Amino acid sequence: MADRLVVIGGDAGGLTAATQARRRRTDLEVVALEKGRWTSYSACGIPYVVGGDVPSLDQLIVRSPEEHRGRGIEVRTRHEAVALDLDRRQVEVRDLDDGGTYLLDFDVLQIGTGARPVRPSLPGMEDAHVHGVQTMEDAAWLLEDVAGANGATRDVVVVGGGYIGLEIAEAFVKRGCRVVVLERGPEVMGTLDPDMGALVTVAMREHGIDVRTGTEVTGFERGLVRTDQGDVAADLIVLGLGVVPNSELAASAGIETGVKGAIKVDRRQRTSADGVWAAGDCCESHHLVSGQQVHIALGTVANKQGRVAGTNIGGGYATFPGVVGTAVTRLCSTEVARTGLSEAEAVGAGFSHRAVTIESTTRAGYFPGAQPIKVKLVYEQGTGRLLGGQIVGREGAAKRIDVVATAVTAGFTVEEVAALDLSYAPPFAPVWDPILVAARAATSQP
Amino acid sequence: MADRLVVIGGDAGGLTAATQARRRRTDLEVVALEKGRWTSYSACGIPYVVGGDVPSLDQLIVRSPEEHRGRGIEVRTRHEAVALDLDRRQVEVRDLDDGGTYLLDFDVLQIGTGARPVRPSLPGMEDAHVHGVQTMEDAAWLLEDVAGANGATRDVVVVGGGYIGLEIAEAFVKRGCRVVVLERGPEVMGTLDPDMGALVTVAMREHGIDVRTGTEVTGFERGLVRTDQGDVAADLIVLGLGVVPNSELAASAGIETGVKGAIKVDRRQRTSADGVWAAGDCCESHHLVSGQQVHIALGTVANKQGRVAGTNIGGGYATFPGVVGTAVTRLCSTEVARTGLSEAEAVGAGFSHRAVTIESTTRAGYFPGAQPIKVKLVYEQGTGRLLGGQIVGREGAAKRIDVVATAVTAGFTVEEVAALDLSYAPPFAPVWDPILVAARAATSQP
Repeated sequence: MADRLVVIGGDAGGLTAATQARRRRTDLEVVALEKGRWTSYSACGIPYVVGGDVPSLDQLIVRSPEEHRGRGIEVRTRHEAVALDLDRRQVEVRDLDDGGTYLLDFDVLQIGTGARPVRPSLPGMEDAHVHGVQTMEDAAWLLEDVAGANGATRDVVVVGGGYIGLEIAEAFVKRGCRVVVLERGPEVMGTLDPDMGALVTVAMREHGIDVRTGTEVTGFERGLVRTDQGDVAADLIVLGLGVVPNSELAASAGIETGVKGAIKVDRRQRTSADGVWAAGDCCESHHLVSGQQVHIALGTVANKQGRVAGTNIGGGYATFPGVVGTAVTRLCSTEVARTGLSEAEAVGAGFSHRAVTIESTTRAGYFPGAQPIKVKLVYEQGTGRLLGGQIVGREGAAKRIDVVATAVTAGFTVEEVAALDLSYAPPFAPVWDPILVAARAATSQP
Repeated sequence: MADRLVVIGGDAGGLTAATQARRRRTDLEVVALEKGRWTSYSACGIPYVVGGDVPSLDQLIVRSPEEHRGRGIEVRTRHEAVALDLDRRQVEVRDLDDGGTYLLDFDVLQIGTGARPVRPSLPGMEDAHVHGVQTMEDAAWLLEDVAGANGATRDVVVVGGGYIGLEIAEAFVKRGCRVVVLERGPEVMGTLDPDMGALVTVAMREHGIDVRTGTEVTGFERGLVRTDQGDVAADLIVLGLGVVPNSELAASAGIETGVKGAIKVDRRQRTSADGVWAAGDCCESHHLVSGQQVHIALGTVANKQGRVAGTNIGGGYATFPGVVGTAVTRLCSTEVARTGLSEAEAVGAGFSHRAVTIESTTRAGYFPGAQPIKVKLVYEQGTGRLLGGQIVGREGAAKRIDVVATAVTAGFTVEEVAALDLSYAPPFAPVWDPILVAARAATSQP
């Protein structure tokens, strides 16, 4: 009899693995369980559907359950894995439509249970009007709310000024809502250092978003959010406080978990349990600069890890070396990117560091469409080893972070970065690309 | 008495060095000789002035002679160095306005004499209507020609389908001219492999440029260009056959030259003569992938080399490790970039290589403004070491070459590239950036 691979979770961490494994072992029986109605979608695209840039949720779907079935993966949507018995090699599954449960045997298990929004335990938090931006169900709900307003101006409060919080804030502004962002920290975008985050705070305010930093939420009620700075009117409340891994199922079966409760995996995406693999937002990753385990819930990581897990499940050999913490977003017309360690993270990892920030333009200064860009580099004192970088600018600025990410991965010093043979032509960069300008400034610092 | 640094050449290779040296040694007397009227300008911007994107030549000037003088550099424009005596440490200088010559003593010499367009010895080549696109004088001449046409449609023939040839072809199309590009090779853009060059040939033709490949120029006459495929009408003829280093002055003084006659320099930009330094288009560079010496005449290289020379002249320590042959351009709405070794170059350097080409989009496929992009990677057989890459696509495609350039410099394998933590958000990339897709395809190739 053929081996059966059971996959828990119908997005990148689960189904990328399933697809890869099935491609390599066509004899494999694959059953994938997904508690929602959708599979393999771009959750990162949700704010753009809510904002109207992308006309419909369907466009975010990379592969539907039917398409997966066509590739030999039996996808069961609205089926939730509720318990896991590693000794008997069985998953207990609940059919969410009829409420019944059944046991499903597996030979190999792939866990891709993802993550869910952080919900601090505050009065009123469980109110239905407090929503995350994580699943297609969330997206459908937010879209319905936008449509339901029938053009009436609504008060939207976003709790947390990170990527998702600010992206969804912009989306609601585009829909004509009044939007308040509540951020506990001194600036939005806490994954940047405050000096760079401040640029984003200013840009968001200029775009008409009422950003309130240094403001702590204390509770929720119908129609308002309570904060330590007073009440804020809220027809709709959206959570943007980050995510926590959905690892309880694995943990309760005795699979080891680590940072923030994320499932521990080795370089091949093996969990601590034999024949059980995991990938995506439910897992840890290894940070190549700090050397520490981290929980970074991003689609890029989930896809890479899923592919590695699937290759290994399919009898191949693949490893996921780790992450450097790269992220990018566009907020209104401001582009924001980061990679590697921020100053705070560098200190946290035990580095003695230095930092430099420069201003330049995205194209030759005289070329039409040249836009401002600020580049910050963080590097190790003494060795000059590049530890990380942050970029805030306008159109054409942010994708340059990939050069910094690649240089960080390579372990380059700022001197080596300054000598990089980066491309130049007036429509693309000044003769010294802003990344080179920043690296050069670092090499000139005493 | 203070040392005197004499600089020959008033653009990047000369004056970047002078500026850097003067900053470090304020006691240094610096005299810079420039045979033209302009200093420190962006020659790469000339096609955009001719095409009208940039309104005036003045905007290309980074630093005028007066500004250099304000920084302690005595710039003598229209003064040409005509002979060099290393034993007496003297330059013979001709004042081009009065025709007189004089001797100028130096303690230290910086050579930044640049390059000039290749002029094959063909009948009629010395005709005034055959022009390069190299200096501000060329630019002024081309602009005058455009203006002089008074709206009459003119026939422009560009000889050579490289970067400059195609950029100037586009510029004249924008000015309403009929433009023919004559290219001896099978496709334009010979620094790409023919499969990628073919995409550019097609794009240029779609833009209304009459590209004639496999066509050899045999001579010039007033009003026409003779080719092995028949005569072509020409009110104006522009050369785009590449450049040769202006190294005769150095060579005749006994300074060693190498590939294509370019001046040999060490890592610190020292020539073979004591106290004589060189930088920019007149020099060789070291190619970090092939390990060979190359002549790559680009502003980026000239600026970096000039800075290194100046730092060393000023008593500091700096080295220029070399190039990987990165270049980028935008032709009509097509973006083109390359780095490292092409397939032909890989063979030439003795590598046994493989190549892969993929198609993707610049943004998430569903995101407005997603544009097509083709990425080709060349890598070593067996080791998988990345040797080079080429990109042809539309808006947002080409600057990704910098990731390839950085990875090539790092000596990464395609497997290491496929694992890079590159940035992703729907407005910037698909979840697998096209570079990752290409590297992944390479790792999957048998």
